[in-house]
Amino acid sequence: MPPKPLDHESLNENVKKVAYAVRGELYLRASELQKEGKKIIFTNVGNPHALGQKPLTFPRQVVALCQAPFLLDDPNVGLVFPADAIARAKHYLSLTSGGLGAYSDSRGLPGIRKEVADFIERRDGYPSNPDLIFLTGGASTGVMQMLNTIIRNEMDGILVPVPQYPLYSAAISLYGGSLVPYYLEEEANWGLDINSLRQSVAHARLKGINVRAMVIINPGNPTGQCLSKTNLRELLKFCFEENLVLLADEVYQQNIYQDERPFISARKILLGMGPPMSKEVQLVSFHTVSKGYWGECGQRGGYFEMTNLPPETVDEIYKVASISLSPNVAGQIFLGLMVSPPKPGDISYLKFTAESKGILDSLRRRARMMTDGFNSCRNVVCNFTEGAMYSFPQIRLPPKAIEAAKKAGKVPDVFYCIKLVEATGISTVPGSGFGQKEGVFHLRTTILPAEEEMPAIMASFKKFNDEFMEQYEDYRGYSRM
Amino acid sequence: MPPKPLDHESLNENVKKVAYAVRGELYLRASELQKEGKKIIFTNVGNPHALGQKPLTFPRQVVALCQAPFLLDDPNVGLVFPADAIARAKHYLSLTSGGLGAYSDSRGLPGIRKEVADFIERRDGYPSNPDLIFLTGGASTGVMQMLNTIIRNEMDGILVPVPQYPLYSAAISLYGGSLVPYYLEEEANWGLDINSLRQSVAHARLKGINVRAMVIINPGNPTGQCLSKTNLRELLKFCFEENLVLLADEVYQQNIYQDERPFISARKILLGMGPPMSKEVQLVSFHTVSKGYWGECGQRGGYFEMTNLPPETVDEIYKVASISLSPNVAGQIFLGLMVSPPKPGDISYLKFTAESKGILDSLRRRARMMTDGFNSCRNVVCNFTEGAMYSFPQIRLPPKAIEAAKKAGKVPDVFYCIKLVEATGISTVPGSGFGQKEGVFHLRTTILPAEEEMPAIMASFKKFNDEFMEQYEDYRGYSRM
Repeated sequence: MPPKPLDHESLNENVKKVAYAVRGELYLRASELQKEGKKIIFTNVGNPHALGQKPLTFPRQVVALCQAPFLLDDPNVGLVFPADAIARAKHYLSLTSGGLGAYSDSRGLPGIRKEVADFIERRDGYPSNPDLIFLTGGASTGVMQMLNTIIRNEMDGILVPVPQYPLYSAAISLYGGSLVPYYLEEEANWGLDINSLRQSVAHARLKGINVRAMVIINPGNPTGQCLSKTNLRELLKFCFEENLVLLADEVYQQNIYQDERPFISARKILLGMGPPMSKEVQLVSFHTVSKGYWGECGQRGGYFEMTNLPPETVDEIYKVASISLSPNVAGQIFLGLMVSPPKPGDISYLKFTAESKGILDSLRRRARMMTDGFNSCRNVVCNFTEGAMYSFPQIRLPPKAIEAAKKAGKVPDVFYCIKLVEATGISTVPGSGFGQKEGVFHLRTTILPAEEEMPAIMASFKKFNDEFMEQYEDYRGYSRM
Repeated sequence: MPPKPLDHESLNENVKKVAYAVRGELYLRASELQKEGKKIIFTNVGNPHALGQKPLTFPRQVVALCQAPFLLDDPNVGLVFPADAIARAKHYLSLTSGGLGAYSDSRGLPGIRKEVADFIERRDGYPSNPDLIFLTGGASTGVMQMLNTIIRNEMDGILVPVPQYPLYSAAISLYGGSLVPYYLEEEANWGLDINSLRQSVAHARLKGINVRAMVIINPGNPTGQCLSKTNLRELLKFCFEENLVLLADEVYQQNIYQDERPFISARKILLGMGPPMSKEVQLVSFHTVSKGYWGECGQRGGYFEMTNLPPETVDEIYKVASISLSPNVAGQIFLGLMVSPPKPGDISYLKFTAESKGILDSLRRRARMMTDGFNSCRNVVCNFTEGAMYSFPQIRLPPKAIEAAKKAGKVPDVFYCIKLVEATGISTVPGSGFGQKEGVFHLRTTILPAEEEMPAIMASFKKFNDEFMEQYEDYRGYSRM
């Protein structure tokens, strides 16, 4: 019998090539252990509400009212909802063409795209055009659509930072392109070295790869750095010289845990550089309600904004977005609320501000606790999480541990992370899922476990790690040299 | 200067090849007219809430409470929400891992996939396995994922009914496969002729196309027919003999407007045929909350169920679904509610049933009004809408109209539909967007305009059409022959 069309050997090879570590081997092992009754701390995905973060009250009130518009006529509605939430629900319903149950325009509701444009203008100091903003079901959908638009065949290359968030490697495989890695410098706090970037491009071109786009993740995932103005200027100049589209993943722009290096958008730097660059460099930037202090991952709301793309290209992107009709409307409203939160004087302003500040201050403390915790462990070194939601410590595995991993048929950091979850219930992602330099090992964990549980988690990590190192280290070991 | 990566000439050619008529030229023209102040009746998309259909109260209450879980502790909650909605909200929140703000498993919440499996078992009389059900952001997302999994290159062919819903042609273009058309028989009430299907496959194979899958849309979009048991048995046997995956678009299964030919799922027929077929034919079926009497398009909730797919393939599909993390959780809960609506004895049962019946009865009357209306027009013939949400009348354009269209540089049915929207505000989709036999012209309209407006809409259509025919017809005209 010949194989059937959906037998494994018959599938699209690009589908099979996709690797997605965030929900890979470690996640599956952790899920098994959970079924067996073990308490698992899922720090593999940046999923704040799953680890106990409470939703912000005001946006939830507004969207609940939009879901139940019949409440707006209920004489008792004022007993359970504040007046400004009621007013905002009416506002957003007026932007829809039939409430949350109607498809919107495939680019998203025009009124909300206008609110996003106003937000971008306030943030960057340059006007933004709502026609160049498309709302999406989370940032990932937008990234995938842009990569599908850019990649024509396996000779089209996309520059991706290493370590990287595996959305990029997975989507590039799926659409049949080539990932061209450029390495972030761990010793320079995961900064970007423009010379190494140049080498990556030169190396790819030697192999015949047509390098067409460059991805940056700022603040970094999994690496947590905020790119400096200098770095951003250099890389934009590089994109101009090398004729690359810049894809700027800026989903963590509200997650900043230090004051020296605030978030600056690639667009603000680009437009500040003036012509010809400000008129020439093609830039697409991505944002979401899943991150920030909102953490509304399950709502699937996001947007991308296009700079210097010609109208015919925007039309093509619109057409392809139309195939899946429209992003979910409640997610669009969350996005509207994120870019236009309560203002001073609104009834809900103080509560909203207190809740937001509470979350951000706690994340800042947790970023510090986690970095310090890792740096107190034997053979572990960790850069401070300047932004985003992750800690990415380097684990200096002794040669004997590497040998043991090989015997077990595992990549060394996978071996370590599986032992970790089995011993402590802490479910992380091995550094190999993000890419790392040869012979260097990491793991990624989110900084999201509840603050009050953090000391116990770090103590449990330290106990496991130090015993692991004790077990596999000897006097000739790597880390003592 | 060389073109930039996102200049039109540099884009992925497959993106450019995509055609998507439902939001194409006619929709854009209608949107323009609306901006100019003309009242437009958008019947181009099956979007019931946009045309005034009210949401069902109970599911909206449940999801509103899930969005605002803090209300569950509010002493006043009972003043605005019934007790069974409160109980159901608690039930669904207990199935999540952190409420609506947390990503779910990429396949959807296990508890809701179980509810879907129970629904399928009640519907078909055969058990269904929740591990083979994936929740999606609307059915379109699922269809696109399956086509991306099947299509390897331009020699992979997918059998698609003509006329078809352009999701299929668009997604096949986007993923670089070949659409292999098979024609539905307008004279046989849009039934499927197995001999013509055989010819389509033979013809494609002669061209070297590897036909791998067959799409059916049952009830039909845009054609409105319900496939008979005999038709379903024949086509399943055909898939078995020809080694084809069957993709069964069954999103209109609740939209049935006659009693002679109820909806029967492809799966029920397949499993009833016994081995070897019931064990061998690979089948994926799709459903959604966007259609039925729910019409919750903007919520983006759907699922697909896989039959006879090997576990390694299911794993690959799971992996690819993981890249975009998870479908929106509120949409998943709508799906759960759709497959397990209030039961007799529940507080909300009578209200829910009355609302549902009101919508379905009205759709049935509208289907009849529309068919009768079209059939009363000069040179228009129209099959009855047995199911789904569309009317697809054939417009017998006189030769002079076809000439006039050519002069205007338009496809004849596009010419007619543009004149129609300009004269009446009725925004339809030309038949050429769905495919039709050479020299035969149609348009698609939804049956969704409000029932009380239907007589005026059909009168306005008749006036336009009959005047149009008067203008372009002469005694040697096609329709008088």
